[in-house]
Amino acid sequence: MKYHLKVEVGLKPGHSDPEGETTSRLLRELGYKVDRVNVSKVYNVILEASSRQEALTKAEEMCKRLLANPTKDNYIIIVEEEK
Amino acid sequence: MKYHLKVEVGLKPGHSDPEGETTSRLLRELGYKVDRVNVSKVYNVILEASSRQEALTKAEEMCKRLLANPTKDNYIIIVEEEK
Repeated sequence: MKYHLKVEVGLKPGHSDPEGETTSRLLRELGYKVDRVNVSKVYNVILEASSRQEALTKAEEMCKRLLANPTKDNYIIIVEEEK
Repeated sequence: MKYHLKVEVGLKPGHSDPEGETTSRLLRELGYKVDRVNVSKVYNVILEASSRQEALTKAEEMCKRLLANPTKDNYIIIVEEEK
């Protein structure tokens, strides 16, 4: 069975996000009433796994081993069956 | 009213995604049965707007004016009320 893992990796609160700050400033200069912008990264991973639970467990492992830096990153995982 | 715009900007199909390819290779080397990985970027924007519809319209404008490159990028917008 194939699963689509959507893994969003972003900075923990308190870490400086210069890309977000610049985007926020540019959007304000364009006239939008923007409070703040945070930029994060999404890994869309197509994974072979035997169940949704296994896919989720693997996704958490991947974050710890490769995708996220535990010192500075938070992550959110969404698992869907891949059509 | 404040809205949280989640704008995911990724490459259109057919565009080369070296970061996704490298991530895919590394995950396979770690033993995961990965088909493919695509990397995209999420702008989490906190915006002042009078309605959800206005927030969505503004988000589409922002994509066209700044956040996405129409030649190579696709985008997905999700609008939620900000708590």
